[in-house]
Amino acid sequence: MNKLQHDIDRDKIINSSLAGSLAHMEKARSPFENAIREREVPVCNAFIKSGRLAPVSFSQSGRVLEPNREIAASFPNSIAASKNRILSAGDTLTATVSGKRVAVMFSGGPAAGGHNVLAGLKHILGEGNTLLGIKAGPKGLLKGNLFEISTDHVRQILNTGGFNLLGTDRTKIEKPEDIEKVKIVCREQNIDAIVVIGGDDSNTNAAWLAEKLYSEVKEDGSGVQVIGVPKTIDGDLQLDDDLPISFGFDTATKIYSEQVGNILRDSSSSLKYWHFIRLMGRSASHVTLEVALQTHPTIALISEEVRERNITLPEIVDSIAETVIMRARKGINYGVVLVPEGLIEFIPGFTTMIDDLNDKMAQYKDDLSGKSIKDQLLFIYSKLTQAHGELLESLPDSIKFKLMEDRDEHGNLPVSKIETETMLSGAVRDRINELDSGIKFGTLNHFFGYEARCGATTVFDSSYTYNLGATAGSLVLDGRTGYMASLTALDRGAAPLGIPIASLLDIEIRKGKPAQVIEKALVKLDSPAFIYFDSRRKLWAENDLSNSPGPIQLWGPTSRQMPKTVALNREYDSLEFRFSGE
Amino acid sequence: MNKLQHDIDRDKIINSSLAGSLAHMEKARSPFENAIREREVPVCNAFIKSGRLAPVSFSQSGRVLEPNREIAASFPNSIAASKNRILSAGDTLTATVSGKRVAVMFSGGPAAGGHNVLAGLKHILGEGNTLLGIKAGPKGLLKGNLFEISTDHVRQILNTGGFNLLGTDRTKIEKPEDIEKVKIVCREQNIDAIVVIGGDDSNTNAAWLAEKLYSEVKEDGSGVQVIGVPKTIDGDLQLDDDLPISFGFDTATKIYSEQVGNILRDSSSSLKYWHFIRLMGRSASHVTLEVALQTHPTIALISEEVRERNITLPEIVDSIAETVIMRARKGINYGVVLVPEGLIEFIPGFTTMIDDLNDKMAQYKDDLSGKSIKDQLLFIYSKLTQAHGELLESLPDSIKFKLMEDRDEHGNLPVSKIETETMLSGAVRDRINELDSGIKFGTLNHFFGYEARCGATTVFDSSYTYNLGATAGSLVLDGRTGYMASLTALDRGAAPLGIPIASLLDIEIRKGKPAQVIEKALVKLDSPAFIYFDSRRKLWAENDLSNSPGPIQLWGPTSRQMPKTVALNREYDSLEFRFSGE
Repeated sequence: MNKLQHDIDRDKIINSSLAGSLAHMEKARSPFENAIREREVPVCNAFIKSGRLAPVSFSQSGRVLEPNREIAASFPNSIAASKNRILSAGDTLTATVSGKRVAVMFSGGPAAGGHNVLAGLKHILGEGNTLLGIKAGPKGLLKGNLFEISTDHVRQILNTGGFNLLGTDRTKIEKPEDIEKVKIVCREQNIDAIVVIGGDDSNTNAAWLAEKLYSEVKEDGSGVQVIGVPKTIDGDLQLDDDLPISFGFDTATKIYSEQVGNILRDSSSSLKYWHFIRLMGRSASHVTLEVALQTHPTIALISEEVRERNITLPEIVDSIAETVIMRARKGINYGVVLVPEGLIEFIPGFTTMIDDLNDKMAQYKDDLSGKSIKDQLLFIYSKLTQAHGELLESLPDSIKFKLMEDRDEHGNLPVSKIETETMLSGAVRDRINELDSGIKFGTLNHFFGYEARCGATTVFDSSYTYNLGATAGSLVLDGRTGYMASLTALDRGAAPLGIPIASLLDIEIRKGKPAQVIEKALVKLDSPAFIYFDSRRKLWAENDLSNSPGPIQLWGPTSRQMPKTVALNREYDSLEFRFSGE
Repeated sequence: MNKLQHDIDRDKIINSSLAGSLAHMEKARSPFENAIREREVPVCNAFIKSGRLAPVSFSQSGRVLEPNREIAASFPNSIAASKNRILSAGDTLTATVSGKRVAVMFSGGPAAGGHNVLAGLKHILGEGNTLLGIKAGPKGLLKGNLFEISTDHVRQILNTGGFNLLGTDRTKIEKPEDIEKVKIVCREQNIDAIVVIGGDDSNTNAAWLAEKLYSEVKEDGSGVQVIGVPKTIDGDLQLDDDLPISFGFDTATKIYSEQVGNILRDSSSSLKYWHFIRLMGRSASHVTLEVALQTHPTIALISEEVRERNITLPEIVDSIAETVIMRARKGINYGVVLVPEGLIEFIPGFTTMIDDLNDKMAQYKDDLSGKSIKDQLLFIYSKLTQAHGELLESLPDSIKFKLMEDRDEHGNLPVSKIETETMLSGAVRDRINELDSGIKFGTLNHFFGYEARCGATTVFDSSYTYNLGATAGSLVLDGRTGYMASLTALDRGAAPLGIPIASLLDIEIRKGKPAQVIEKALVKLDSPAFIYFDSRRKLWAENDLSNSPGPIQLWGPTSRQMPKTVALNREYDSLEFRFSGE
């Protein structure tokens, strides 16, 4: 095709005006990133006084949470102060608080909107107080790795995705010596408050820190306040009207919805593939449910339903195979199946069976060596507990083989590493061949994951997080500790709240040991969002009613939508959110 | 977290006003899809007469292509008519052409913008002519599976992604009996012209059809015109200024750029992963180059450079490992490596080595059975040709093992199935352990593919395709055949062109046989886009200069950008395109 080619001058190219302007767009300075920094963020009326941003005060509301008594005993300071009551915002603070040094960190996996928490926090603290950023998460706090967040920093990160201004990690601050390290850092760097931006585990950690730093940290006997901010793309940190959703969920699900919508359109264009798509979400299926409501896939599996209705893996496979065959007979040889990442762990008995299998394969390593996979299976059935042996035996061959094959160098198969979408599509293929080998069934498997954690923040998430930051800052300036910032009434101006974290803790068995944690909010089968999904999904399976909801729009007529699951569950009248009262 | 739960009434939920409005948003009626249908598409001045859309006439320009003489002999009709000259548009057609029946089909993989080709075609043909849609690609033409595309259809699909109004497939119409079938369909359904929307192979097919249907198709001795429209997300259908890019490339690369930008932000937030990302693009690396220019990853491999500079796989692995170590020593334990899908086939000797390996493994099946992988390798080296044996032996262990393991049920390893990103990250890990085992190197592998073929069409692609459709329709009404519709001068109003397809054909060896095909436009190392990339990449490897260019915006300040590679290669002054002269 070089037919009309001409000579190229390297220097001329590099020095062209276009090349020059491209080189100036590096380091988060794409036209898009430059433009979103200029966008104004809607602020709740609560934070506006005489046309200017101002922190609010809080008072205990009538809404009382019922703490786990056993746990409550471990949080005497926090519970005595909060009386397990949710704080609601009143007027703006009358006295000006100044001189506070507030440290903020990200904890756990990134989620879009984190930067705007910092922005809301910085702006509400105002010039009279200092905001310090803790580098690289809890580990950075232990090391005392802090720097002052300037207004220039905030201008750089406003409305942008990611956690990159600070970085993050997953270190837990639990051991007494770690708490001591934190106390020393707080004394040395004269920190008055710590804001922890994280998910359920990080907020559990915040509750601990709040209790342990309640008093006697500084030389004058005073403590250090600790405030949490609810983040997680999984959406499993929720508390009905008092915490409609964690931040990051809206952006992540809109990114996945774009991708899934595109695949749905591809499947109905190419007319030959069934796509099996695994979506991120460690346990709960909120992400999958939201994406299903946005896109109307052929099938969306919901882990909580599988567990609650005791649906076995062969039953799941059967039901997908039947849908494939039903559609094929109508001439529709394509479809999309959404698979929540956590599915495997919700299938009755599956996780313990895998553990048992891992153990027995290690124990009988020598007996198994040299055997074919079929013979290995025959050998191992009888070594498992009866229930586990029967469960393994009941699985489709392709799944059994994958469970034996996909082992790491230590011979283990961690549940989280199972490619559920590949396993399912293989099993469905086997089942279809048994039922009707004439059916065309081409498959493609996908995992949509990390690309949704740091995406360009939706208008919902950037507004929500800015106001969460302002709420967290207000809680600090109002002298509170052990609370998580929240907002309610997202469809009508939004109102700031403080939720006493210790009152949310419960005891859960983790890795065989009881742990005090915030219980994950799972999809409830009696929630409006699930009931609505349940009322439509048969139609979606039988016909092609799919939507391509498109990429996240920061401008234009469709930019102000909250998640559908949130609007349904909160019984709002529309999808449009409002963070200001006008 | 069920602490503030209340009773739910299923009927009330399903009959709520929100649920009702959600149910009305099904089947491509999301708020986004509804809104984009209302967007106006910019039209070139060439197509406007007295404020209304009007087809243009064409005349032969001074730009002459040099056909392959051997091939030219097979296209006597087409070449006699075109004289190998590119057609440029003149005034709008003076005589009104009516009564024409034009059939249109999609061919090959989907690409965003296809629907707007139909829209431009329908509108330019006007009410006096009939547009017929061929269902499910070339196969549908052979079956005579056609329907009339109405203005209602066009309203439904305007600006939406995908090929779903018609569907597509990859059937080739080459055999004399297939040409006969097409002639019968044309006679029976009284078709005057066929528009083929497809990539290089589909346009090759269009050239064939044009030649074979040149005359004596209808009872009156007349022929059927055939016009091509250049589609492919790979961007490998280009002809310098006369065809700056195929449609679908802009949307696909903007979708990948969003995803890669998000991953780059995730990597600099989580501070612990190297992401290896394989991007679609069967042969050419245009997609990877464009995404690299949009996002500034740590490393982007370009297949054409690997082939042209004779870079071996161990050299690629070494160079990535060195960058990982260089960054780690600066405290940067993360990065992103872009890997073009076609890379493997460009590594000197790799493809023939795999073929040889497949053959020999089949031949010595019995000798290999029961052997460990290491022993299998030791056995097979000497069976390969000396060059292949040496190449295989030179590869990192992890790659050798993967090449032996990843075989399908027939024992084959098709090159297209090699997960290059996984192979590379494994090999880089081995190399780093050899060089400096103290380096932290966590990896995540991704393949970004199908989600970019049917995405919400960018403003560039929807404008480009609408005008390509109007160009194709004008070529039909002007009585032309054997041309591909194109547009030039995309930065200054755009001008319609017709490119004689037969003049583009060349002979290429495919599956061991000579085939007449349009030569794929590969990335040229002396092109401005590559030279610019080359001038920046060292900086991107050493520092974090990454961009998150964000999701495709249909509204707002950043919606009117063409691909960077196109703007650079065409030496435009800015990224902004203009499809109207005002």
